[in-house]
Amino acid sequence: MPRIPRAVRPAYDVESLTDVAVAVFSTRGYDATRMEHIARAANISKSSLYHHVSNKEELLGRALSRAVGGLTAILSEPGAVEGSPAARLEYVLRRTVKAELQFLPEVSLLIRVRGNTAVERQALEERRRFQDRVADLVTEAQRAGEIDSGIDAGLFVRLVLGMSNSLVDWYRPDGTWSTRQIADAMIELVMKPTTSSVPANGRRAR
Amino acid sequence: MPRIPRAVRPAYDVESLTDVAVAVFSTRGYDATRMEHIARAANISKSSLYHHVSNKEELLGRALSRAVGGLTAILSEPGAVEGSPAARLEYVLRRTVKAELQFLPEVSLLIRVRGNTAVERQALEERRRFQDRVADLVTEAQRAGEIDSGIDAGLFVRLVLGMSNSLVDWYRPDGTWSTRQIADAMIELVMKPTTSSVPANGRRAR
Repeated sequence: MPRIPRAVRPAYDVESLTDVAVAVFSTRGYDATRMEHIARAANISKSSLYHHVSNKEELLGRALSRAVGGLTAILSEPGAVEGSPAARLEYVLRRTVKAELQFLPEVSLLIRVRGNTAVERQALEERRRFQDRVADLVTEAQRAGEIDSGIDAGLFVRLVLGMSNSLVDWYRPDGTWSTRQIADAMIELVMKPTTSSVPANGRRAR
Repeated sequence: MPRIPRAVRPAYDVESLTDVAVAVFSTRGYDATRMEHIARAANISKSSLYHHVSNKEELLGRALSRAVGGLTAILSEPGAVEGSPAARLEYVLRRTVKAELQFLPEVSLLIRVRGNTAVERQALEERRRFQDRVADLVTEAQRAGEIDSGIDAGLFVRLVLGMSNSLVDWYRPDGTWSTRQIADAMIELVMKPTTSSVPANGRRAR
Protein backbone atom coordinates (compact mmCIF):
# COMPACT_ATOMS: atom_id res chain seq x y z
CA MET A 1 0.00 0.00 0.00
CA PRO A 2 1.32 3.46 -0.83
CA ARG A 3 2.17 5.60 2.18
CA ILE A 4 -0.19 8.50 2.69
CA PRO A 5 1.89 11.67 2.49
CA ARG A 6 2.00 13.64 5.72
CA ALA A 7 0.46 16.61 3.94
CA VAL A 8 -2.75 14.68 3.34
CA ARG A 9 -4.54 15.11 6.63
CA PRO A 10 -8.18 14.69 7.45
CA ALA A 11 -10.01 18.01 7.41
CA TYR A 12 -11.02 18.36 11.03
CA ASP A 13 -13.96 20.28 12.32
CA VAL A 14 -15.08 20.79 15.90
CA GLU A 15 -17.20 17.62 15.85
CA SER A 16 -14.44 15.32 14.66
CA LEU A 17 -11.96 16.95 17.06
CA THR A 18 -14.44 16.21 19.85
CA ASP A 19 -14.34 12.55 18.75
CA VAL A 20 -10.55 12.59 19.05
CA ALA A 21 -10.69 14.35 22.44
CA VAL A 22 -13.21 11.83 23.81
CA ALA A 23 -10.89 8.98 22.84
CA VAL A 24 -7.91 10.67 24.49
CA PHE A 25 -9.89 11.55 27.65
CA SER A 26 -11.06 7.94 27.87
CA THR A 27 -7.62 6.39 27.72
CA ARG A 28 -5.56 9.05 29.49
CA GLY A 29 -8.13 10.45 31.91
CA TYR A 30 -9.47 14.00 31.56
CA ASP A 31 -7.27 15.56 34.24
CA ALA A 32 -4.08 14.11 32.79
CA THR A 33 -4.94 15.18 29.23
CA ARG A 34 -3.26 18.27 27.80
CA MET A 35 -4.18 20.01 24.54
CA GLU A 36 -0.94 18.77 22.98
CA HIS A 37 -2.04 15.15 23.57
CA ILE A 38 -5.23 15.85 21.62
CA ALA A 39 -3.32 17.63 18.86
CA ARG A 40 -0.89 14.71 18.61
CA ALA A 41 -3.73 12.17 18.45
CA ALA A 42 -5.33 14.20 15.67
CA ASN A 43 -1.98 14.58 13.92
CA ILE A 44 -2.33 18.36 13.74
CA SER A 45 -0.34 21.17 15.34
CA LYS A 46 -1.39 22.68 18.65
CA SER A 47 -2.07 25.99 16.90
CA SER A 48 -4.38 24.27 14.40
CA LEU A 49 -6.22 22.75 17.34
CA TYR A 50 -6.54 26.16 19.01
CA HIS A 51 -7.95 27.47 15.75
CA HIS A 52 -11.00 25.26 16.38
CA VAL A 53 -11.37 25.22 20.18
CA SER A 54 -10.25 27.42 23.08
CA ASN A 55 -9.30 24.71 25.58
CA LYS A 56 -9.85 21.13 26.67
CA GLU A 57 -12.82 22.13 28.81
CA GLU A 58 -14.68 23.22 25.68
CA LEU A 59 -14.06 19.76 24.22
CA LEU A 60 -15.27 18.10 27.42
CA GLY A 61 -18.35 20.33 27.35
CA ARG A 62 -19.12 19.25 23.79
CA ALA A 63 -18.67 15.58 24.71
CA LEU A 64 -20.93 15.90 27.77
CA SER A 65 -23.54 17.73 25.67
CA ARG A 66 -23.70 14.82 23.27
CA ALA A 67 -24.38 12.42 26.12
CA VAL A 68 -26.85 14.44 28.13
CA GLY A 69 -28.35 16.18 25.08
CA GLY A 70 -28.99 12.76 23.54
CA LEU A 71 -30.92 11.77 26.66
CA THR A 72 -32.89 15.01 26.98
CA ALA A 73 -33.93 14.88 23.31
CA ILE A 74 -35.67 11.53 23.95
CA LEU A 75 -38.23 13.24 26.17
CA SER A 76 -39.61 15.26 23.24
CA GLU A 77 -39.99 12.33 20.87
CA PRO A 78 -43.57 11.24 20.05
CA GLY A 79 -43.18 7.94 21.92
CA ALA A 80 -42.31 9.85 25.08
CA VAL A 81 -45.32 12.15 24.98
CA GLU A 82 -48.09 9.99 23.52
CA GLY A 83 -49.76 6.96 25.05
CA SER A 84 -50.21 5.62 28.57
CA PRO A 85 -47.66 6.59 31.24
CA ALA A 86 -46.27 3.03 31.31
CA ALA A 87 -45.95 2.97 27.51
CA ARG A 88 -44.15 6.33 27.59
CA LEU A 89 -41.87 5.15 30.39
CA GLU A 90 -41.02 1.98 28.50
CA TYR A 91 -40.29 4.05 25.39
CA VAL A 92 -37.98 6.38 27.30
CA LEU A 93 -36.07 3.52 28.95
CA ARG A 94 -35.61 1.67 25.65
CA ARG A 95 -34.40 4.84 23.95
CA THR A 96 -32.09 5.56 26.88
CA VAL A 97 -30.31 2.23 26.36
CA LYS A 98 -30.00 3.00 22.66
CA ALA A 99 -28.76 6.57 23.21
CA GLU A 100 -26.23 5.43 25.81
CA LEU A 101 -24.83 2.80 23.46
CA GLN A 102 -24.67 5.39 20.68
CA PHE A 103 -22.60 7.75 22.85
CA LEU A 104 -20.87 5.18 25.05
CA PRO A 105 -17.54 6.99 25.61
CA GLU A 106 -19.33 10.31 26.13
CA VAL A 107 -21.71 8.72 28.67
CA SER A 108 -18.71 7.20 30.39
CA LEU A 109 -17.26 10.70 30.80
CA LEU A 110 -20.62 12.06 32.00
CA ILE A 111 -20.93 9.41 34.69
CA ARG A 112 -17.47 10.18 36.00
CA VAL A 113 -17.63 13.97 36.20
CA ARG A 114 -17.95 15.36 39.70
CA GLY A 115 -18.94 18.95 39.03
CA ASN A 116 -15.48 20.50 39.40
CA THR A 117 -16.08 23.14 36.70
CA ALA A 118 -18.98 25.15 35.29
CA VAL A 119 -19.11 22.91 32.22
CA GLU A 120 -19.36 19.81 34.39
CA ARG A 121 -21.95 21.35 36.69
CA GLN A 122 -24.12 22.31 33.72
CA ALA A 123 -24.04 18.76 32.38
CA LEU A 124 -24.84 17.30 35.80
CA GLU A 125 -27.71 19.75 36.21
CA GLU A 126 -29.16 18.75 32.82
CA ARG A 127 -28.74 15.08 33.73
CA ARG A 128 -30.57 15.69 37.01
CA ARG A 129 -33.45 17.33 35.11
CA PHE A 130 -33.63 14.28 32.83
CA GLN A 131 -33.77 11.99 35.89
CA ASP A 132 -36.48 14.15 37.47
CA ARG A 133 -38.61 14.01 34.34
CA VAL A 134 -38.26 10.22 34.15
CA ALA A 135 -39.20 10.08 37.85
CA ASP A 136 -42.34 12.14 37.05
CA LEU A 137 -43.23 9.55 34.43
CA VAL A 138 -42.73 6.77 36.98
CA THR A 139 -45.01 8.59 39.43
CA GLU A 140 -47.65 9.00 36.72
CA ALA A 141 -47.49 5.31 35.82
CA GLN A 142 -47.73 4.40 39.49
CA ARG A 143 -50.78 6.63 40.00
CA ALA A 144 -52.40 5.06 36.94
CA GLY A 145 -51.85 1.66 38.59
CA GLU A 146 -49.72 0.56 35.63
CA ILE A 147 -46.55 -0.18 37.58
CA ASP A 148 -45.89 -1.16 41.17
CA SER A 149 -46.21 1.81 43.49
CA GLY A 150 -44.25 0.11 46.27
CA ILE A 151 -40.98 1.71 45.17
CA ASP A 152 -40.14 5.39 45.59
CA ALA A 153 -40.07 6.94 42.10
CA GLY A 154 -36.70 8.62 42.67
CA LEU A 155 -35.14 5.37 43.80
CA PHE A 156 -36.71 3.50 40.87
CA VAL A 157 -35.14 5.94 38.43
CA ARG A 158 -31.68 5.79 40.01
CA LEU A 159 -31.68 1.99 40.03
CA VAL A 160 -32.98 1.64 36.49
CA LEU A 161 -30.72 4.32 35.03
CA GLY A 162 -27.89 2.75 37.06
CA MET A 163 -28.58 -0.48 35.21
CA SER A 164 -28.47 1.34 31.92
CA ASN A 165 -25.39 3.41 32.84
CA SER A 166 -23.55 0.23 33.76
CA LEU A 167 -23.35 -0.48 30.03
CA VAL A 168 -20.25 1.73 29.96
CA ASP A 169 -18.52 -0.82 32.21
CA TRP A 170 -19.44 -4.08 30.52
CA TYR A 171 -20.91 -3.57 27.05
CA ARG A 172 -18.72 -4.90 24.27
CA PRO A 173 -19.86 -4.49 20.67
CA ASP A 174 -18.84 -8.08 19.91
CA GLY A 175 -22.37 -9.25 19.42
CA THR A 176 -22.81 -11.15 22.71
CA TRP A 177 -25.97 -9.14 23.31
CA SER A 178 -27.66 -6.77 20.87
CA THR A 179 -29.00 -3.35 21.84
CA ARG A 180 -32.48 -4.81 21.43
CA GLN A 181 -31.75 -7.77 23.71
CA ILE A 182 -30.36 -5.50 26.41
CA ALA A 183 -33.34 -3.13 26.24
CA ASP A 184 -35.77 -6.09 26.23
CA ALA A 185 -34.11 -7.61 29.29
CA MET A 186 -34.15 -4.32 31.16
CA ILE A 187 -37.82 -3.69 30.40
CA GLU A 188 -38.62 -7.31 31.26
CA LEU A 189 -36.91 -6.90 34.61
CA VAL A 190 -38.26 -3.56 35.70
CA MET A 191 -41.64 -3.20 34.03
CA LYS A 192 -43.03 -6.67 33.60
CA PRO A 193 -44.57 -7.25 37.00
CA THR A 194 -47.53 -5.05 36.43
CA THR A 195 -47.61 -4.05 32.77
CA SER A 196 -47.87 -7.55 31.37
CA SER A 197 -50.37 -8.97 33.79
CA VAL A 198 -52.19 -8.47 37.02
CA PRO A 199 -50.67 -10.90 39.51
CA ALA A 200 -53.01 -13.66 40.61
CA ASN A 201 -52.85 -12.62 44.24
CA GLY A 202 -53.84 -9.02 43.59
CA ARG A 203 -50.53 -7.80 45.01
CA ARG A 204 -50.83 -4.66 42.95
CA ALA A 205 -53.28 -3.18 45.42
CA ARG A 206 -50.61 -2.88 48.10
CA MET B 1 -9.32 23.10 72.67
CA PRO B 2 -5.64 22.40 73.22
CA ARG B 3 -3.59 21.90 70.07
CA ILE B 4 -2.45 18.36 69.55
CA PRO B 5 1.34 18.40 69.47
CA ARG B 6 2.82 17.36 66.13
CA ALA B 7 4.57 14.49 67.83
CA VAL B 8 1.27 12.87 68.72
CA ARG B 9 0.36 11.09 65.54
CA PRO B 10 -2.01 8.25 64.97
CA ALA B 11 -0.24 4.90 64.97
CA TYR B 12 -0.77 3.75 61.43
CA ASP B 13 -0.86 0.19 60.25
CA VAL B 14 -1.32 -1.16 56.76
CA GLU B 15 -5.11 -1.18 57.09
CA SER B 16 -5.44 2.43 58.16
CA LEU B 17 -2.89 3.51 55.53
CA THR B 18 -5.06 1.74 52.96
CA ASP B 19 -8.00 3.87 54.19
CA VAL B 20 -5.92 7.01 53.62
CA ALA B 21 -4.78 5.80 50.19
CA VAL B 22 -8.35 5.02 49.11
CA ALA B 23 -9.39 8.56 50.02
CA VAL B 24 -6.47 10.06 48.10
CA PHE B 25 -7.04 7.80 45.05
CA SER B 26 -10.72 8.81 45.07
CA THR B 27 -10.12 12.54 45.04
CA ARG B 28 -6.91 12.72 43.01
CA GLY B 29 -7.32 9.71 40.74
CA TYR B 30 -5.07 6.66 41.03
CA ASP B 31 -2.75 7.54 38.14
CA ALA B 32 -2.12 11.05 39.44
CA THR B 33 -1.43 9.88 43.00
CA ARG B 34 2.17 9.64 44.17
CA MET B 35 3.37 8.04 47.40
CA GLU B 36 4.21 11.47 48.76
CA HIS B 37 0.55 12.52 48.43
CA ILE B 38 -0.47 9.57 50.57
CA ALA B 39 2.27 10.28 53.11
CA ARG B 40 1.19 13.91 53.30
CA ALA B 41 -2.49 12.95 53.76
CA ALA B 42 -1.46 10.60 56.57
CA ASN B 43 0.82 13.26 58.04
CA ILE B 44 3.79 10.91 58.11
CA SER B 45 7.09 10.97 56.26
CA LYS B 46 7.55 9.14 52.97
CA SER B 47 10.06 6.81 54.62
CA SER B 48 7.55 5.93 57.35
CA LEU B 49 5.05 5.10 54.60
CA TYR B 50 7.61 2.90 52.82
CA HIS B 51 8.17 1.14 56.13
CA HIS B 52 4.61 -0.22 55.80
CA VAL B 53 4.10 -0.66 52.04
CA SER B 54 6.33 -1.04 48.98
CA ASN B 55 4.39 1.14 46.54
CA LYS B 56 1.02 2.61 45.65
CA GLU B 57 0.10 -0.49 43.67
CA GLU B 58 0.23 -2.52 46.88
CA LEU B 59 -2.24 -0.05 48.43
CA LEU B 60 -4.52 -0.28 45.40
CA GLY B 61 -4.33 -4.07 45.60
CA ARG B 62 -5.39 -3.98 49.25
CA ALA B 63 -8.28 -1.63 48.44
CA LEU B 64 -9.47 -3.81 45.55
CA SER B 65 -9.20 -6.92 47.75
CA ARG B 66 -11.54 -5.36 50.27
CA ALA B 67 -14.14 -4.71 47.58
CA VAL B 68 -13.95 -7.96 45.68
CA GLY B 69 -13.09 -10.05 48.76
CA GLY B 70 -16.20 -8.65 50.46
CA LEU B 71 -18.30 -9.83 47.53
CA THR B 72 -16.69 -13.26 47.22
CA ALA B 73 -17.11 -13.92 50.96
CA ILE B 74 -20.89 -13.57 50.56
CA LEU B 75 -21.03 -16.72 48.48
CA SER B 76 -19.87 -18.87 51.43
CA GLU B 77 -22.37 -17.48 53.92
CA PRO B 78 -25.18 -19.84 55.04
CA GLY B 79 -27.86 -17.77 53.27
CA ALA B 80 -26.00 -18.22 49.99
CA VAL B 81 -25.73 -21.99 50.23
CA GLU B 82 -28.96 -23.06 51.96
CA GLY B 83 -32.51 -22.82 50.66
CA SER B 84 -34.12 -22.62 47.24
CA PRO B 85 -32.11 -21.13 44.36
CA ALA B 86 -34.33 -18.00 44.33
CA ALA B 87 -33.91 -17.55 48.10
CA ARG B 88 -30.13 -17.90 47.77
CA LEU B 89 -30.07 -15.46 44.84
CA GLU B 90 -32.12 -12.94 46.79
CA TYR B 91 -29.78 -13.36 49.75
CA VAL B 92 -26.70 -12.78 47.59
CA LEU B 93 -28.17 -9.69 45.92
CA ARG B 94 -29.21 -8.16 49.25
CA ARG B 95 -25.80 -8.82 50.75
CA THR B 96 -24.13 -7.41 47.62
CA VAL B 97 -25.89 -4.08 48.15
CA LYS B 98 -24.81 -4.09 51.79
CA ALA B 99 -21.20 -5.03 51.01
CA GLU B 100 -20.96 -2.40 48.28
CA LEU B 101 -22.23 0.29 50.63
CA GLN B 102 -19.78 -0.89 53.29
CA PHE B 103 -16.82 -0.54 50.90
CA LEU B 104 -18.18 2.22 48.67
CA PRO B 105 -14.89 4.00 47.82
CA GLU B 106 -13.14 0.66 47.29
CA VAL B 107 -15.95 -0.55 45.00
CA SER B 108 -15.70 2.72 43.13
CA LEU B 109 -12.01 2.00 42.47
CA LEU B 110 -12.81 -1.60 41.47
CA ILE B 111 -15.38 -0.51 38.90
CA ARG B 112 -12.95 1.91 37.33
CA VAL B 113 -9.88 -0.32 36.98
CA ARG B 114 -9.15 -1.48 33.47
CA GLY B 115 -6.64 -4.26 34.08
CA ASN B 116 -3.49 -2.25 33.39
CA THR B 117 -1.41 -4.08 36.02
CA ALA B 118 -1.21 -7.56 37.55
CA VAL B 119 -2.94 -6.31 40.71
CA GLU B 120 -5.84 -4.90 38.69
CA ARG B 121 -6.12 -8.00 36.52
CA GLN B 122 -6.27 -10.22 39.60
CA ALA B 123 -9.12 -8.15 41.07
CA LEU B 124 -11.02 -8.15 37.77
CA GLU B 125 -10.57 -11.91 37.48
CA GLU B 126 -11.95 -12.44 40.98
CA ARG B 127 -14.84 -10.11 40.21
CA ARG B 128 -15.57 -12.10 37.03
CA ARG B 129 -15.64 -15.32 39.07
CA PHE B 130 -18.12 -13.71 41.47
CA GLN B 131 -20.33 -12.69 38.53
CA ASP B 132 -20.11 -16.20 37.06
CA ARG B 133 -21.18 -17.76 40.34
CA VAL B 134 -24.13 -15.40 40.64
CA ALA B 135 -25.03 -16.25 37.03
CA ASP B 136 -24.96 -19.96 37.97
CA LEU B 137 -27.43 -19.17 40.75
CA VAL B 138 -29.68 -17.33 38.26
CA THR B 139 -29.57 -20.33 35.92
CA GLU B 140 -30.48 -22.65 38.80
CA ALA B 141 -33.41 -20.44 39.83
CA GLN B 142 -34.56 -20.29 36.22
CA ARG B 143 -34.40 -24.09 35.84
CA ALA B 144 -36.38 -24.45 39.07
CA GLY B 145 -39.03 -22.17 37.53
CA GLU B 146 -38.58 -19.68 40.36
CA ILE B 147 -37.60 -16.71 38.23
CA ASP B 148 -38.31 -15.76 34.65
CA SER B 149 -36.18 -17.75 32.23
CA GLY B 150 -36.71 -15.28 29.41
CA ILE B 151 -33.52 -13.40 30.18
CA ASP B 152 -30.02 -14.74 29.57
CA ALA B 153 -28.43 -15.41 32.98
CA GLY B 154 -25.23 -13.54 32.10
CA LEU B 155 -27.18 -10.49 30.98
CA PHE B 156 -29.39 -10.66 34.08
CA VAL B 157 -26.31 -10.60 36.32
CA ARG B 158 -24.66 -7.71 34.50
CA LEU B 159 -27.82 -5.60 34.63
CA VAL B 160 -28.58 -6.35 38.26
CA LEU B 161 -24.99 -5.89 39.46
CA GLY B 162 -24.90 -2.75 37.29
CA MET B 163 -27.86 -1.47 39.30
CA SER B 164 -26.04 -2.26 42.51
CA ASN B 165 -22.70 -0.86 41.29
CA SER B 166 -24.42 2.39 40.36
CA LEU B 167 -24.62 3.08 44.11
CA VAL B 168 -21.08 4.46 43.86
CA ASP B 169 -22.43 7.20 41.60
CA TRP B 170 -25.54 8.31 43.47
CA TYR B 171 -25.66 6.93 47.01
CA ARG B 172 -25.38 9.60 49.68
CA PRO B 173 -25.40 8.56 53.34
CA ASP B 174 -27.79 11.42 54.15
CA GLY B 175 -30.67 9.13 54.93
CA THR B 176 -32.71 9.68 51.76
CA TRP B 177 -32.80 5.93 51.31
CA SER B 178 -31.57 3.30 53.77
CA THR B 179 -29.53 0.27 52.78
CA ARG B 180 -32.61 -1.83 53.48
CA GLN B 181 -34.86 0.31 51.27
CA ILE B 182 -32.39 0.13 48.39
CA ALA B 183 -32.03 -3.64 48.68
CA ASP B 184 -35.82 -4.05 48.98
CA ALA B 185 -36.41 -1.95 45.87
CA MET B 186 -33.82 -3.86 43.89
CA ILE B 187 -35.24 -7.22 44.87
CA GLU B 188 -38.77 -5.95 44.20
CA LEU B 189 -37.72 -4.86 40.73
CA VAL B 190 -35.75 -7.87 39.59
CA MET B 191 -37.21 -10.81 41.48
CA LYS B 192 -40.86 -9.98 42.04
CA PRO B 193 -42.35 -11.18 38.76
CA THR B 194 -42.12 -14.84 39.55
CA THR B 195 -41.13 -15.25 43.19
CA SER B 196 -44.09 -13.41 44.67
CA SER B 197 -46.84 -14.76 42.47
CA VAL B 198 -47.66 -16.67 39.36
CA PRO B 199 -49.00 -14.15 36.85
CA ALA B 200 -52.65 -14.65 35.94
CA ASN B 201 -51.81 -15.21 32.29
CA GLY B 202 -49.38 -18.02 32.95
CA ARG B 203 -46.59 -16.09 31.27
CA ARG B 204 -44.07 -18.03 33.28
CA ALA B 205 -44.36 -21.00 30.95
CA ARG B 206 -42.80 -19.04 28.10
